[in-house]
Amino acid sequence: MLDVIRKGYEKFGFVPIETPVFELKEVLLTKSGGETEKQVYFVQSTGALQQGHEPELALRFDLTVPLARYVAQHERELAFPFRRYQIQRVYRGERPQRGREREFYQCDIDVIGKDKLDPAYDAELPAIIVHIFSELGLPDFTINFSNRKMLFGFLSNEGENDTERQKLVLREIDKLDKIGVKKVRQNLMETGLRPALIDGLLQMVSLQGGNEEIVNELKNKKIEHPLFQEGLAELEKVVSSLRALDVPEKRTRLNLAIARGLDYYTGTVYETMIDAHPEFGSVCSGGRYDNLAGLYTRSKLPGVGISIGITRLFDQLRGLGLLPQVPHTVQILITQLEPEMRPEYLSMAADLRKAGFRVENYLEPARLDKQLKYAGKAGIPLALIAGTEEKKRGTVLIKLLDSKEQLEIPSAALASRLRDLLTF
Amino acid sequence: MLDVIRKGYEKFGFVPIETPVFELKEVLLTKSGGETEKQVYFVQSTGALQQGHEPELALRFDLTVPLARYVAQHERELAFPFRRYQIQRVYRGERPQRGREREFYQCDIDVIGKDKLDPAYDAELPAIIVHIFSELGLPDFTINFSNRKMLFGFLSNEGENDTERQKLVLREIDKLDKIGVKKVRQNLMETGLRPALIDGLLQMVSLQGGNEEIVNELKNKKIEHPLFQEGLAELEKVVSSLRALDVPEKRTRLNLAIARGLDYYTGTVYETMIDAHPEFGSVCSGGRYDNLAGLYTRSKLPGVGISIGITRLFDQLRGLGLLPQVPHTVQILITQLEPEMRPEYLSMAADLRKAGFRVENYLEPARLDKQLKYAGKAGIPLALIAGTEEKKRGTVLIKLLDSKEQLEIPSAALASRLRDLLTF
Repeated sequence: MLDVIRKGYEKFGFVPIETPVFELKEVLLTKSGGETEKQVYFVQSTGALQQGHEPELALRFDLTVPLARYVAQHERELAFPFRRYQIQRVYRGERPQRGREREFYQCDIDVIGKDKLDPAYDAELPAIIVHIFSELGLPDFTINFSNRKMLFGFLSNEGENDTERQKLVLREIDKLDKIGVKKVRQNLMETGLRPALIDGLLQMVSLQGGNEEIVNELKNKKIEHPLFQEGLAELEKVVSSLRALDVPEKRTRLNLAIARGLDYYTGTVYETMIDAHPEFGSVCSGGRYDNLAGLYTRSKLPGVGISIGITRLFDQLRGLGLLPQVPHTVQILITQLEPEMRPEYLSMAADLRKAGFRVENYLEPARLDKQLKYAGKAGIPLALIAGTEEKKRGTVLIKLLDSKEQLEIPSAALASRLRDLLTF
Repeated sequence: MLDVIRKGYEKFGFVPIETPVFELKEVLLTKSGGETEKQVYFVQSTGALQQGHEPELALRFDLTVPLARYVAQHERELAFPFRRYQIQRVYRGERPQRGREREFYQCDIDVIGKDKLDPAYDAELPAIIVHIFSELGLPDFTINFSNRKMLFGFLSNEGENDTERQKLVLREIDKLDKIGVKKVRQNLMETGLRPALIDGLLQMVSLQGGNEEIVNELKNKKIEHPLFQEGLAELEKVVSSLRALDVPEKRTRLNLAIARGLDYYTGTVYETMIDAHPEFGSVCSGGRYDNLAGLYTRSKLPGVGISIGITRLFDQLRGLGLLPQVPHTVQILITQLEPEMRPEYLSMAADLRKAGFRVENYLEPARLDKQLKYAGKAGIPLALIAGTEEKKRGTVLIKLLDSKEQLEIPSAALASRLRDLLTF
């Protein structure tokens, strides 16, 4: 799965970086206090521990902080927009439980601009995720996207300018899929919002239809607040770019109800749901931010990013038996039928490797059925058997471990026949 | 480089495993005390630290201990011989300096048997390393190999049975390449070894010639001690298997003077030198061990393994400008000559990706020369330029960033032309 993700990121022109597993404590803990800070793992060498020093290093808890530190540190050498992907493990000092690991993979991509970054970049990320999830053979999924400027703009347009109350409203709207419109309406009433405004808001976030249709309906509202207009123009650019990038319509959904990452994201936001399994939650999320590395550099570095929570997704898929089938690493086991013929088995392996196959020699003296049992247990699909008899006839036996079928093939035709058998 | 190593390991029928970055302190620290223990990094969550608890977890300092723990834990599910590769980072709490990192990659392969493991497996590992180092395009290199039973057997045959003195002798022999035969002879005299025995020993470890020749000379010595005979039979099997595996003669050297891993390895040992740079030291070492996981299971698990110290090798090669040139991840930048044509640039990217290329869209409004400068700085080899004029003519311009050459190509021939340009 990691390989497919990596290849997908590279196909869309992202370059890999890796960062150290630990950062200086001061670098890691400037981003946010609270929950995250409680979950940090600190690191100390034996010597430092014995001397009773305070820890200086801590393990990264996400890939965003290391990215910010990296970009700030290498700003002069990097070409902007800087497009990197990063597939690494992160660490959270929590009590491990189902869906919460202490060590897990994140697969992040971000595009970082210098001073500015065109909203057209915001369309690339969902296009990449659609490509990767399709390659992975995942069940049907939908990438919900929105732009946070829309709801803020709508509220400001109605004179609701209090930032704290705006955030409160977004937090309630975000629950729409979970608790339903009735409960959300009730909660919104409690915030003191005018009933007419609540109606308008709920109507807007419930808009249905194709992405272009929704954009048109939003245009027809003639809401003039500049923040709303800005968000709408950005959304329109994302929608038209998704079409140009040939992303299937059913895979993306302009859904104004999503409002995640309340304080961090400033424009486009994404949430990806597996259609038949809303209980998974969002398996791939992200969004647009104004300034990546304000704590480490004076340059303004706006960006847009998305992250696949692959460890959790893997666990969830495995739990439901939905993991994509992948071929075994080893394709062919060459058995050692007659130990005196070992040099010939080794040569056969060398030849097949040159022809591009992944080949293992069984070199332990053992009965053939034990060797075949080993191949079966190890998940190797094909075994070759060749003794003095076959050598005389100029043939090799191919055993298909799954079907137990056995074929006798002329040695000269071996490579092409193996290729056929491995690609069905 | 990691990719090449990975593909090489898989071609020879090894499967990947990954293990957690931390292990329980008790698991990590049973292996050895002394130097390693002083270099361990301990890990503690914020909560545990505040409560003044002793650390329970520590970061792995090699990949052997996690492998032993893993094999012992999953013994029932694994098929033996178990062949795994592991490319992960390890951690040592030392003062960082040139050639000594606190965090670095190890690329290990091991074959683990249950109760026994045929010496023929010992020939596979050098064959893999020769394949990988050649694929990497490294400078000329030699894998030195030996069998520790030879020197022990020789000494025992001469009545030198004191294990401590035997180890002392091996340690001196190991210095032969560094300090020369004269100084080694002098040191050996000081151990109290008989001069005639020293002569015999130095003659044996200085044998020159092809691997088969040296095996024959060793046979002609008619040394009857069973340990010597056992080592010689194993060496002979390794030499004949190397030939069967089509390993070029000049890449391996039976060299009885290597004696590394004094207490850990029990049979075959390997050391890999870059011929023109002995100052690198061994860049890939390993050997045969009697029992991998004696601390974690009662089963006897003999094995043979080898490890590429890739971080250090990378640094050394880079220092000398010897790093292999690799193509940039991104192959093609589609420039945005006319922002109104953005949808067409995005479609062009989608088409080229379907054709298998790794493609980036430049989506920021910017002058063409700025976009080309970006491509150059980012190391992207080709840029596409297509405006209204080219569209009318049904063509696209390809700019070669290295040579500044520019070609005008019919749109229909674009993919095949790009393929040519990227594979020269």
